[in-house]
Order: sequence, then structure tokens, then C-alpha cells
Amino acid sequence: MPLSANDPSRSTWLEVPEQSDFPIQNIPFGVFLTRDDIITIGTRIGDTAIDLGALHQLGYFQGIDLTDDIFLQDSLNDFIADGRKTWRLVRNRISEIFMKDNPWLRDNKAHRKQVLFSMEEIEMQLPVDVGDYTDFYASKEHATNVGSLFRDPENALLPNWLRIPIGYHGRSSSIIPSGVPIRRPVGQTKPGEDGVPGFGPSKLLDFELEMAFITTDSNDLGKRIGLDEAEDYIFGLVLFNDWSARDIQAWEYVPLGPFLGKNFASTISPWIVTLDALEPFRTAGPDQDPVPLPYLQQVGDKNFDINLEVTISPENGDETTVCRSNFKYMYWSMAQQLTHHTVNGCNVRSGDMMGSGTISGPTQESFGSMLELTWRGQNPITLNDGSQRKFINDGDTVTLKGYSEHQGVRIGFGNCEAKVLPAEPFKG
Amino acid sequence: MPLSANDPSRSTWLEVPEQSDFPIQNIPFGVFLTRDDIITIGTRIGDTAIDLGALHQLGYFQGIDLTDDIFLQDSLNDFIADGRKTWRLVRNRISEIFMKDNPWLRDNKAHRKQVLFSMEEIEMQLPVDVGDYTDFYASKEHATNVGSLFRDPENALLPNWLRIPIGYHGRSSSIIPSGVPIRRPVGQTKPGEDGVPGFGPSKLLDFELEMAFITTDSNDLGKRIGLDEAEDYIFGLVLFNDWSARDIQAWEYVPLGPFLGKNFASTISPWIVTLDALEPFRTAGPDQDPVPLPYLQQVGDKNFDINLEVTISPENGDETTVCRSNFKYMYWSMAQQLTHHTVNGCNVRSGDMMGSGTISGPTQESFGSMLELTWRGQNPITLNDGSQRKFINDGDTVTLKGYSEHQGVRIGFGNCEAKVLPAEPFKG
Repeated sequence: MPLSANDPSRSTWLEVPEQSDFPIQNIPFGVFLTRDDIITIGTRIGDTAIDLGALHQLGYFQGIDLTDDIFLQDSLNDFIADGRKTWRLVRNRISEIFMKDNPWLRDNKAHRKQVLFSMEEIEMQLPVDVGDYTDFYASKEHATNVGSLFRDPENALLPNWLRIPIGYHGRSSSIIPSGVPIRRPVGQTKPGEDGVPGFGPSKLLDFELEMAFITTDSNDLGKRIGLDEAEDYIFGLVLFNDWSARDIQAWEYVPLGPFLGKNFASTISPWIVTLDALEPFRTAGPDQDPVPLPYLQQVGDKNFDINLEVTISPENGDETTVCRSNFKYMYWSMAQQLTHHTVNGCNVRSGDMMGSGTISGPTQESFGSMLELTWRGQNPITLNDGSQRKFINDGDTVTLKGYSEHQGVRIGFGNCEAKVLPAEPFKG
Repeated sequence: MPLSANDPSRSTWLEVPEQSDFPIQNIPFGVFLTRDDIITIGTRIGDTAIDLGALHQLGYFQGIDLTDDIFLQDSLNDFIADGRKTWRLVRNRISEIFMKDNPWLRDNKAHRKQVLFSMEEIEMQLPVDVGDYTDFYASKEHATNVGSLFRDPENALLPNWLRIPIGYHGRSSSIIPSGVPIRRPVGQTKPGEDGVPGFGPSKLLDFELEMAFITTDSNDLGKRIGLDEAEDYIFGLVLFNDWSARDIQAWEYVPLGPFLGKNFASTISPWIVTLDALEPFRTAGPDQDPVPLPYLQQVGDKNFDINLEVTISPENGDETTVCRSNFKYMYWSMAQQLTHHTVNGCNVRSGDMMGSGTISGPTQESFGSMLELTWRGQNPITLNDGSQRKFINDGDTVTLKGYSEHQGVRIGFGNCEAKVLPAEPFKG
């Protein structure tokens, strides 16, 4: 059931540029440093950042059960722990405050000055303190492509893949917000003819186009979440670039999975778009054949129609779109992922993050990594400036973008971008 | 250089039972709930728990640069972040306070009442808020055994194993302190003849005998730690039982590694024994052939001689020792593990935990898991009550123990134990 905040006819007294990712129907949540260097939780409409800590102090959330300092924090974890009912009340109230005809804040200049910032004045931070980060592998096309490239094209999809939303644990400490540059990682690679492993800066640095969802506290250790309630524990989504060093990964990953090939950096978009805001964009996922085991059988539309794209901008160059995909291609839904994650009693906490795995679609242009787009470098991509890419070069900026559109309302995520710096020099 | 706190001739005015793991030369750190339900950081001598928060408030740490609330916290993370110099000053001061001839606290009854608790009065908690948990796979014998059992006895050790301290990311949320019972996990297992995966409580529940070290903040993202400084970033060690469901693991782990077969629970001993306390027990590790790449080449003794054992106690039954191993068998040292972990620029934070992987030695009785001890159930173990075990039964309590001994001083870890409860019933 769409919320009033999602009503496509809603408009706001704030200016919203055409094609903005952040109309009044979005109301994402993030954490930022204000011009006074104060850290606060906020939201965004158009290009205006809104300080929720200040709004709360001024009494705009009266009647909603919130602690005084709930928005004066450096992460959303406590707010997310308050649960879905509270998220909805807050989102609806924000929508009300900024409605075109509402004078409360619109006509109070002193309050506006305290609450509103232009995006240039603030600095976005990580929105959550990520306790555990899990990465799934839920796109059938991606798993098939990788299986063909790394193993056997005849048996690209492993027997467990159609039965289990395959996932593994990733590194929380190296998750960084959009805009922070990353360093090309150094590491071991497969031995040459002399049998000695290679060592040095990765030669096959890649992006992975993913989305990630953020959970609230759900189950005590030893308990599980049923599929019918799984979405109640999902606060919202971000774009997620799971940077990968393919040469390091290929040498290290057997038998325990990826490690240093992945954990040097993961970039996320800083605004968490709530599942409520994405409600109008529900859609069916791919048919699941064979039928999943009972605990993974879902009813209704559990996928979301979110257009995704990836661009590469060389140093001082224009951007080139290298991939166009869609979140709806995921074979295993977020609800199935979360249900599977807890079927063994594993507990999930507020602020935990779960990545989708690379989102590749059925066509070549929809493949979500350079590995697949260039088929391991066999078919380089030509950028607008005429240069070619098999993988990502030093100085390149990789940007993920995502948005949904329905009845003239566009809900987007803003950019998820990072520039690649050369490897840290090695001493001794 | 051993610290004065390590002097084997030191004795204390507190009573210390013979064969105690906690003489005055140990001084481990932990977190506990006092009889007044206050959470505090503490240490232990003999069977006396010592409230460091109270000691600090009473001025016993005067002259050491500590914030007022450094010990009045529910985790050691901030204290660990203060760095090695501070850890040493505090440990030496504690040693001084409890020396036999020191009257400061000994002769102050009011202070003693505030500071000292019997172990029965307190409840041990998790000592750190674990940000990221990494599990290594650093015992050659274990990797060889598992390779033989799961893959090919002729090529048991994979080509990368002798070059890389293989590791993978684990789950932080399900790390629990000794004494908390665990639930047998439920999950999918390999399909039978009908091609449909099995589903239900794990039939092959196993322990893994490990140790884990806890780090301090070390490197910013993009920087690395050199091997010569790696030990400066290790605060101390705990015993670690990395519970494993072998049947769930076998079906899910290709190609991204263990997931639900591991993340349902990991039990740690609650007292962190500092690397400083273990200094007298340094020893050489196994020869490394081939010689590691330069960034992993170490000088001096980087292994530690710590006797380890595992017991199983059936419900209402006596304990049977099923394994006797030693931490010195590790092929890759902790210093090598931490150095490798950051060579790609991955950052490490205060409170992060790194498991050794199962510690198996060269003899059969030293194998650190039921999988290896019973050779996948082929050679069941007979317990003292006459019952047999291929894996772990409901009602069994598994206990890990560890201690070092040198010049009459025994430094131990206390117990790391948990009872196995039946699987949580499945609704619908």
C-alpha cells in the first residue's frame, strides 16, 4: 500500500531541479557535516540538505516517540533500530513539513536558516556504522559469466547456485562513502613459469555494480526470520561498488573465497533510500526453476525496478557510460537473501549491510563489471576520448547511478563514485 | 625483553590456587557485570576479579595518561586504541598493586571491598566490540587434512597455501563469550538421489580449536603494516571455538567460501591474555619452504608455545579430553597474518579479531576438529561414559583450554566452553 509520502501529485515549496533524484517523494536518510562542522542526520530534497537534528530540536517531530538525540548522531544505527513504524512516521512528517502549502517551516526564516543547507555547504559521511557486511551473488547472469570465465563454460552455474542465495562475508572497515578516492591495491598474483607468485599493484582492477540493503535489529542469535516478515527488517538501499582486483582474487580465492581481492575498498552512495520510497517500483523477479525449498518460497513482487548505470571518467576527461543494467534482474530477492542468512540462527543487527552481488542483465551492455563487459579483456571498451579500457586505470573515476521512474516521479540514489589513485609505494 | 610484570619470582597477597591460569604474571583484560549489575573492565588474579574502573576512580593509576571513563565501558576497544605503551604501563601498575609486599590496596579494607570480587559474583561479557572478524587457515596439518577429506588426498594442499596466509571474513555478530549455549543450526545440505537438497538440523556439528588475536587501530585505509611492526598492533589472544556445521558447509562453500556453516556461533574465552604476558613463551615456528615473498619474511621467534586441549562433556557426564594440540604448530605466524591482511591497504581497527584457523598438529590426537579426529566419522571417539561420538551431540558441552608453562609460571586462558542445545523448532 503506497504511503501518502509517495503520492505522485505531492509537490514542495523547496526548489527541485528537473530530473532530480530527490523529489519530495524520496526523502532518503544520510549523515553529514554541516557548515559549522557539526555532525547530524539529515535528508535531502532537490539540492537542499535538511538537518533533522535541528528540525527535531525545534519541535517539528512532536508526537513521534523519539529520543532527544536520535538525529544528533554520527550514524543512523539507533534510528534504524527504532523500527519500521517510526521510520514511516518520520518520513511522513518530513513530507508534510515540506509540502507546497505548509507554512510551518516555509514561512519561518529563522528556522529555515537553522535547518536548510545547500549541498555545497555540507560533507556527506557514511550513513551507518556497518557491523557486518555480507555480499551475495544473486544475479544468475553474473554467476554464469564468472563461471564461464574462471571455470568451465559448459558447467558455468554450480549445482548449489539455483538452490541457495550464495553469499559470503565481506569487510566492514573498508566501506567508504562516495567521493573518497581509493588506492590501487598491491598483492600476490598467480605464479609464472618459475613457480613464484607475482607481486605488485593489481593489473586487473575492476568495479562491481551492486546495490546493498541495510537492516534493522531482527533476530536474536539462534532465531530466524521468515520470508513473510523479512522486508520489515530492511530499512533501505544504497548503490554499492564492490571494488575488485581480479588478479589478486584469482590466486587467493580457493578454497575459502575472495579476501584481499575485495577488502581494500567498497564505495557506497551516501543517501539511504527507504524501501517505503521504492514501494511504487515493485516488480516480479525472474522465474525460479527449480522451485526453491519451502523456507525460500515467496509470494508477490519482491524485486524492484531500478535503472542502473556505470560511467568511467578518465583524468580530466568526459564520462562514458559503459553499463546499463537494472536491479530487477536479481534472481534471488532481498527477502530471500535475508531469510536464508538467518535460517541457521545467525543474528542480524541494525546497520548491517547486505550487497546483492554484481547485477548483470541478459544483454552484454548490462553486464555489471569490466571482467564481463570486456570478457576478461578480450574486447576492450573505447571511451569517448578514444582511449581504451580492459580494466580500470589510475586516474579514472568510476560512477554508479540508479533511479526508478513511475507516473512522472523519479526516485534516485545520487552518485556513488570514486577516483582510483596509484598504488601506495612499497618501502623495503 | 620480558617486563617486570613477567618476573617468575613475583608473588601476590591475593590467594592463587595451585595450577591457576591467572597468577600475578598473567593480568588478562576482560569485561564483566559486577554484583551490583554495573558493567566494568577488569582483570583477574587467581579466582579474584578486579574492577579496574573502581581502581582508577580510587586513584591507583595516577601518573598514567588515561581518560576518566576508560575502564567504565562495556568493551575494551577504547583502551586497546590507547596503544601498547599504555597497556604496558597499566599492566605493570596492576602487577605492582598486587605484589606481596605492597600495602596500598592490601591494607585498605574499604578499597578492597570496592575493587575485589569473587568470580562467582560476576558475569563475564564479550571483552571487545568486534568490528571485523577474519579467520585464517594457518595450520598446514589442518589444511592438508581438510584437503584430503573434501578434495584430493594426492593434492591436499592447494598451490596457493604455501605462499599466502589464506584467510576469509567471518561474522562478528555471532561471536559470544564462554558459557552461552549455542543452538544446533538448521540448513540446506547436499542433494540426495532425487536431486533435491536436504534441509533440517545439521547432522555434522563440529568444533574448531582455534586461537584469535585482537588488534588495535593500525593503518589508515590504503596504508599497510610491515612485518617488523606487526606485533605492536596485537593486544592479546583468546581461545576461539569456531563452531562448524560440516554438512551445511560442504554444500554451500563453492565458490565463495564458508557462510551459514560457520556464522551461527563462535565462542571465545572472555579474558584477553596480552602478548606481553606471553613473551616468555616465544618459540620458532615450522620451517617455511618455499621461502615466503619478501613482505612475509620474518626474523626471530614469532610463534608461541601454548598447550591446547579440547574436552567433551555429555549432558550430566564427565569430561573426556579428545584433543591435545599446541599453538606453536601454526605455519603462518600472527605477524605474517596481520601483515598479509593489510598488504593491499585494508585497514584494521581496535577490537578486530583474527582467528588462526583450526590448530592441528602432526599427530592424530592433536587434530583440532571432530572432522579430522574421527576422519569424517570413520573412527568414532569413545568418551569416558562409553558413548561414542563422530560429531557433537545435543546436550554436549565442548570446552577449549590453553596454557603456557615456563620456570614454574603458568599463564592460561581459562575455559572457552558452550553447551549445544537442540535446533530451534521450525514453524510452517
